[in-house]
Order: sequence, then C-alpha cells, then structure tokens
Amino acid sequence: CNLTGWWENDLGSKMQVFNVDNDGTFSGEYHTSVSSAKKPIQPSPLIGSQHLDEDGQCTFGFTVNWKKFSDSTAVFVGECFKGDDGKEVLHTSWLLREKVDSEPEDWKATR
Amino acid sequence: CNLTGWWENDLGSKMQVFNVDNDGTFSGEYHTSVSSAKKPIQPSPLIGSQHLDEDGQCTFGFTVNWKKFSDSTAVFVGECFKGDDGKEVLHTSWLLREKVDSEPEDWKATR
Amino acid sequence: CNLTGWWENDLGSKMQVFNVDNDGTFSGEYHTSVSSAKKPIQPSPLIGSQHLDEDGQCTFGFTVNWKKFSDSTAVFVGECFKGDDGKEVLHTSWLLREKVDSEPEDWKATR
Amino acid sequence: CNLTGWWENDLGSKMQVFNVDNDGTFSGEYHTSVSSAKKPIQPSPLIGSQHLDEDGQCTFGFTVNWKKFSDSTAVFVGECFKGDDGKEVLHTSWLLREKVDSEPEDWKATR
Repeated sequence: CNLTGWWENDLGSKMQVFNVDNDGTFSGEYHTSVSSAKKPIQPSPLIGSQHLDEDGQCTFGFTVNWKKFSDSTAVFVGECFKGDDGKEVLHTSWLLREKVDSEPEDWKATR
Repeated sequence: CNLTGWWENDLGSKMQVFNVDNDGTFSGEYHTSVSSAKKPIQPSPLIGSQHLDEDGQCTFGFTVNWKKFSDSTAVFVGECFKGDDGKEVLHTSWLLREKVDSEPEDWKATR
Repeated sequence: CNLTGWWENDLGSKMQVFNVDNDGTFSGEYHTSVSSAKKPIQPSPLIGSQHLDEDGQCTFGFTVNWKKFSDSTAVFVGECFKGDDGKEVLHTSWLLREKVDSEPEDWKATR
Repeated sequence: CNLTGWWENDLGSKMQVFNVDNDGTFSGEYHTSVSSAKKPIQPSPLIGSQHLDEDGQCTFGFTVNWKKFSDSTAVFVGECFKGDDGKEVLHTSWLLREKVDSEPEDWKATR
C-alpha cells in the first residue's frame, strides 16, 4: 500500500503521511491521543520509510520527535494489510524512549 | 550530542549518520553485522530524528529500510550519554518487523 | 481480580488458571491458537504469580513452557481491568523466546 | 543447563533459583539492583519454568512478584549458553508491567 494520507488507530491517535518518495521515504505529522508528558499535546513531526513491494503488503517504520512538548522519541514499525472488504489496515508496534539522566537509569527508559 | 559520524555497537554493526539538520532530522547508512535474510547483507539507508537538547543527552530514533536484501524494516530508539571518560555512548533498543502474508500471522512478525 | 477460571484473547487462544494461592502463585494450562512450531499444538503448562490488591486491578505474570511440541518459552505480563459492564478484562503483553544454537544468534531469538 | 543456584546480571541484580523440578518448574528469589518504586528494594519471590533439553541450551521464563515494595510485576525470558571457557551464561529479555488506574492508560504500562 501507499501510506500517503490519514490513518487512525484504536486509541484515537491520528497520523498524516504527506508524500512517499520513489525510494519509500516519507514525512508527516502525528497527532497522539495519549501522553505522559506534562505539557499539552501538540502535533509532532514524523519521518520514516516504507517498502514498495508489488503485492501491496509493505513493511514500514517511522520516528516521531515529540519536540514541542516532550524530550522523548517514539518509533513505530508495522505492516499494511488489505482486509476482506478491501480496506487497508496498518498493524504496528512501537517503542517510546524517555529521557533519563544517567546510564544507570537506562534500564527503565524504554516503554 | 550530535549524531553525525560513525557509530558501532557490541555486535559489530556500524552506522554512519550523514548530517543532522537544524530540526534534528538526519539520514545515513546502516551496515548490519547480523541478518536472518537469505540474500547477502548490504549497507541500507536509514532516516530518523533526534532531539537537540542543550544538556547533550538527546533521545533519538531512526528507521532502517533493508530494501536491497530483505522485505523487513527495523526501527531503533535510544539516548546518547557521555561517559566518565568524555566519550559519547549510544544506548538503543530496536524492533524488527518481518513481512508476513496475512493478518492471522501478525502476532509473530515483530522481533 | 482473581485469575482463577478460563480466559480467552482476541486471537482465540484460551487459558485456564487452576487456583490462585494465598501468596498469588498460580498454575494452569494454555491452549494457544497460533504457533510457529512444526509439531501440532498441544495444551501447555503455565505457572505464574499475581498481586492481590484490594482494588481488584492486579498486575500479574506467567510463564508458558511449550515443552510438548516446541523448545520455546513464552512469558506474559499484564493487568486486570473491570469494564463498564462489570466484566473483567485482561490486558497483556508477551515475549516469546525461541531457541538458537549459539550466542551470536541471540539478537534474533526474542519475538 | 540447570538453573539451580545463583546468577548475576550486568546491572548487579542477583537471583537465586532454589530447585528445578523434574518437569522444569522452579522457584527462587530475585534481588534487584534497580527500581522505580518509592519503597526500599527487598528480595522478591520468583516462579518459572525451564526446558530440560539434552544439549544443555534450554530456554526458560519466570515471573517476579515485587509484592513487598511495589504493585508491579516483571517477567523474564531467556536461554542458557555455555561459553568457550565452559562457564554458563544467561541471555534474558524482560517486560515490567506497572499498575495503571484505567484502561485508557494501558498503553504506557509496559516497559
């Protein structure tokens, strides 16, 4: 599938992928519905890359930099599937890196 | 820290970050030392984003598209620390998404 | 909540928890609906532990030893929630460790 | 390998496995060196299961119930390797489930 456009997940977070280049690179904006930061949520820039396989079931990944309201970074990785009704669905997993002050605290920094 | 330059991990994988933009975006190349693909390993493009915090302990994330030899995608997320000897060290976690043929196989696609 | 009884997840896997001891320890049987092993799936023993908090929202964890048909081991960790309709729901995450032959392959052993 | 005995990890956490039954079940005590809880760390009971493969490279998993000082639960999964020097080494991954108050917070509960 081509990721260009709007996508929404179960928790109500939305993302817009602006445009996918010929080599699979894309940028966009992530509107998260959940946050553990104290500042108000704001749309955050995302950048990533997808495979352009002919069967339309591409894997992809992207990074979200929550720079406007948090010093954390999130990465998402997933695959696009075409459901029985022809609608495309994304299945993703993610990791959130929270900033910690020193290496001994590193063990707890990833959700 | 500024991620521009070469980094190596415990397993012997190396990455080169070409240049970090003013907004934290960067691209580069990942030379993995390990693979579960059948084709020979090749350097693969990476694209990501880092925070530009003044204390130098930035979190960052990036996506590697193994397009030349695999239909998988990997994402990495981490933080930069400055060791006692002044040397900068990256601590990262990763997820690898392998392509599966259908949604019922989705459960096993992420390492 | 008390985990004793039968539970089913989205993928159709079922587990039966036999009895929860006074200290939270329990054993049971896991009937997985999915497998990457070559041998036929069989019910597998599980053993774990739960918190016994008064508010009924306990965290818990357990290990499944797929010994009858696979040399892998899985662990699950989660929390029990009471929905608006009063029905108890489990939210879990899991890791599956597959056996690899040597330490250099360790990186890919965990899903 | 047989897990009975004392093991220590890179962070200085230690665990003692009391005894492994004929079916692979074991219990023990985990002495963590790191914690995000506010109460003082205390040794915590663990319970789990290992494979008993003849080649000595068993996979295993166990649950730690931090009940004395935290309402979290951790699970570990791994494999035992024999190094060149004949010394046995454990490679493990873990998930920590922290208690959250409601289902909408579920997304952030697992480290």
